[in-house]
Amino acid sequence: MADNGISRRRLLGTAGATGLALGAAGGAAGYAAAPSEASSSDRAASLTSLGADEVMFHGKHQPGITTPVQSRGHLVAFDLAAGAGRKEAAALLRRWSATAERLMAGKSVAGEDTDVARDAGPSSLTVTFGFGHSFFGRTGLEKQRPSALDPLPDFSSDHLDKARSDGDLWVQIGANDPLVAFHALRALQKEAGDAARVRWQMNGFNRSPGATSHPMTTRNLMGQIDGTNNPKPSEDDFDQRIYVPATGATRDPSWMAGGSYVVVRRIRMLLDDWEKLGLGDQEAVIGRHKSDGSPLTGGTETTEPKLEKAGKDGKYVIALNAHARITRPDQNGGSAMLRRPFSYHDGFDKGGEPDAGLLFVCWQADPLRGFVPVQRKLDRGDALSEFIRHEASGLFAVPGGAAKGEYVGQRLLEA
Amino acid sequence: MADNGISRRRLLGTAGATGLALGAAGGAAGYAAAPSEASSSDRAASLTSLGADEVMFHGKHQPGITTPVQSRGHLVAFDLAAGAGRKEAAALLRRWSATAERLMAGKSVAGEDTDVARDAGPSSLTVTFGFGHSFFGRTGLEKQRPSALDPLPDFSSDHLDKARSDGDLWVQIGANDPLVAFHALRALQKEAGDAARVRWQMNGFNRSPGATSHPMTTRNLMGQIDGTNNPKPSEDDFDQRIYVPATGATRDPSWMAGGSYVVVRRIRMLLDDWEKLGLGDQEAVIGRHKSDGSPLTGGTETTEPKLEKAGKDGKYVIALNAHARITRPDQNGGSAMLRRPFSYHDGFDKGGEPDAGLLFVCWQADPLRGFVPVQRKLDRGDALSEFIRHEASGLFAVPGGAAKGEYVGQRLLEA
Ligand code: HEM
Ligand code: HEM
Repeated sequence: MADNGISRRRLLGTAGATGLALGAAGGAAGYAAAPSEASSSDRAASLTSLGADEVMFHGKHQPGITTPVQSRGHLVAFDLAAGAGRKEAAALLRRWSATAERLMAGKSVAGEDTDVARDAGPSSLTVTFGFGHSFFGRTGLEKQRPSALDPLPDFSSDHLDKARSDGDLWVQIGANDPLVAFHALRALQKEAGDAARVRWQMNGFNRSPGATSHPMTTRNLMGQIDGTNNPKPSEDDFDQRIYVPATGATRDPSWMAGGSYVVVRRIRMLLDDWEKLGLGDQEAVIGRHKSDGSPLTGGTETTEPKLEKAGKDGKYVIALNAHARITRPDQNGGSAMLRRPFSYHDGFDKGGEPDAGLLFVCWQADPLRGFVPVQRKLDRGDALSEFIRHEASGLFAVPGGAAKGEYVGQRLLEA
Repeated sequence: MADNGISRRRLLGTAGATGLALGAAGGAAGYAAAPSEASSSDRAASLTSLGADEVMFHGKHQPGITTPVQSRGHLVAFDLAAGAGRKEAAALLRRWSATAERLMAGKSVAGEDTDVARDAGPSSLTVTFGFGHSFFGRTGLEKQRPSALDPLPDFSSDHLDKARSDGDLWVQIGANDPLVAFHALRALQKEAGDAARVRWQMNGFNRSPGATSHPMTTRNLMGQIDGTNNPKPSEDDFDQRIYVPATGATRDPSWMAGGSYVVVRRIRMLLDDWEKLGLGDQEAVIGRHKSDGSPLTGGTETTEPKLEKAGKDGKYVIALNAHARITRPDQNGGSAMLRRPFSYHDGFDKGGEPDAGLLFVCWQADPLRGFVPVQRKLDRGDALSEFIRHEASGLFAVPGGAAKGEYVGQRLLEA
């Protein structure tokens, strides 16, 4: 490949100096529009910011946790191949980390590149790696297995497909361009080589940057603004809630310093039932207005809900089983998580209902102080429960970010 | 719904006067980023151009044919329900046209809206309607059936899944935002009501506007720049090649004036085999360079290939079975088509190969002077054939665009 080792972004950035600027909307470009008569070197012109946006691979934490959610996402779990152990896993994570770093910087892969992402900038690509419970047995690393990876409890409403649950290794890919995301997925799959095989894979999406001027860019497929009351990186207790501490007496092994635990649930939305509800009933289920995400007790999206406020009928304005009431940290002994989902839609089932919902991805320092207690409560009777169905589940230990020269998981695999 | 009948775009446009401008990349927005403290009315601020871009519903031709290809696409076929005939079909096309017009203008649906597209602009949404061969029998309109809808011939390399082929009605949805596209798909599906049911549905994608500054915005999943030598609307013979003439002695029924015939093929790419080829062999298969789409005989993407040029070995530089040689109009008695595909990727099959390829969508005034002769030739021995597999097929008559006050297909259904 001609451009091995050369940053697509850098190339394009340089050529941008020729001054040929194209609008972000690309309205004049693409299929069924006439190609420009400019020479091909002129054409590799300035890159608009969607493509040029780059997320750092190295750092204290892995990318893809606090990164603004991208418009395209792939979740994929791998199982180590028979015969592959710690050594092969270490080599794989080394290869994967090198490739993730290259691709996130807008470069091609080190070997033969498929060219699928060629011409495009990194487009906010992130790649995030995690280890599942079964990984530690297969690699003889049981002693390093965090107790936080103990299997999630069964929930009474679970309808889990085992074939699409769990896995030795988990990779999350997000990008604001679907070809950049597919390119990364395919590159990482091929690098798995003989060491690991795809166990399950899911595709998701969120609103495209620029489609709305609303700062909370996305809604879910029930139509709600979703993500409002997430913990914010600017908050004092954010790190403590989301990341495993670097030092001190935690029950986590030291290789998890700066890491986080991710719970992944494929949650089907029963849209036929949901859409039969009137607007008022839909809003009662959540406890927030659909239009702007404001609490039913008034204000704007960021106003604190008045949980004690009663209506003229003497009932709470925000019902006792409203989703946005019972999931709150202050209703769960402080349990909090950072939700960072993608929507999914995989066609229609035989009854004509879309196979669609949320690839629910949530991050926490400890699943027992995040997802588990909250889901236990939702399972007992959240107003939303009758409109959703959990169809797949995974729990993974996501180590801290790799320092320069290091690969993700090195502190585990070379301890 | 509070905003029934109010254009989201207009709302946002007005509020934009408050001057709060947000970058097209939306880098600061979204999940896992702090929501702004601005009030919700301030937040509905200026809309960046990706969201604001609007395609006209009314016109001589339907939208979604020469519209630059969008980053998200849905193809869906419906069958009329048992008992539904011409009357029900006419009512359905009337409902669908009204909704397509509203949504393409950035408005909500006339009834209860799901809110999934709320806050977003129309994002270049297009909705295109077509009629399949079976539609005419079911509605007693056999006499109006164009002979151009006669079933496509069998091709020796076909591996067609009947359940994902054909259909009474076909709808193509494209938008630069996945939630806007899903919203439209769901709205149209619900409006089918008791009259029609989803027969098959496919999801596709292309490069996001702004991810590249290359004017041909997209590559396919084999990594090639694809779409280069498409007929251009600026060319003299474009209309004649792509659209059914408005008047004169054609074999088409008069209701097809201004219409076009679309051939839809789900073409699986055998990526494991393809990616084993070296770059030179891949380029020989097409006859163009992968990097910039230029012909193997030199120049830039838009340079005419020198079909007669031979190399030092005495062989043609562009091989006799090169895809971009044998598909050319001048090698097919003038047969031409406008290709406007989406890529697809629906996970991995059991062998670990991505179920991915091209939702090949091509437009022509007459399938017998477009797709059929070219595909017949490809079927006999195009260098690309061993790397692809046609898995589903459809052929639909897409009538001309609706005039104001008219619905798509009215000239057929109320003749
Ligand atoms: C398809 C399934 C779900 C949907 C559609 C959904 C939707 C929502 C919506 C609309 C909100 C209010 C806006 C916001 O603060 O983001 C919300 C809040 C929340 N949800 Fe969910 N949710 C789903 C599943 C879950 C699950 C499985 C959990 C965890 C077990 C969860 C935990 C939370 C939390 C912690 C909050 C924030 C509460 C607060 O602090 O105010 N959600 N959800
Ligand atoms: C997955 C399947 C296919 C792939 C990957 C593919 C790829 C390409 C590429 C890379 C080009 C050269 C660039 C361009 O002019 O767009 C091309 C040209 C073309 N292809 Fe395909 N193609 C596929 C299937 C088909 C089929 C099924 C047909 C029609 C039966 C077709 C008809 C054409 C035509 C008419 C041209 C333009 C030739 C010219 O006028 O120069 N292609 N294709």
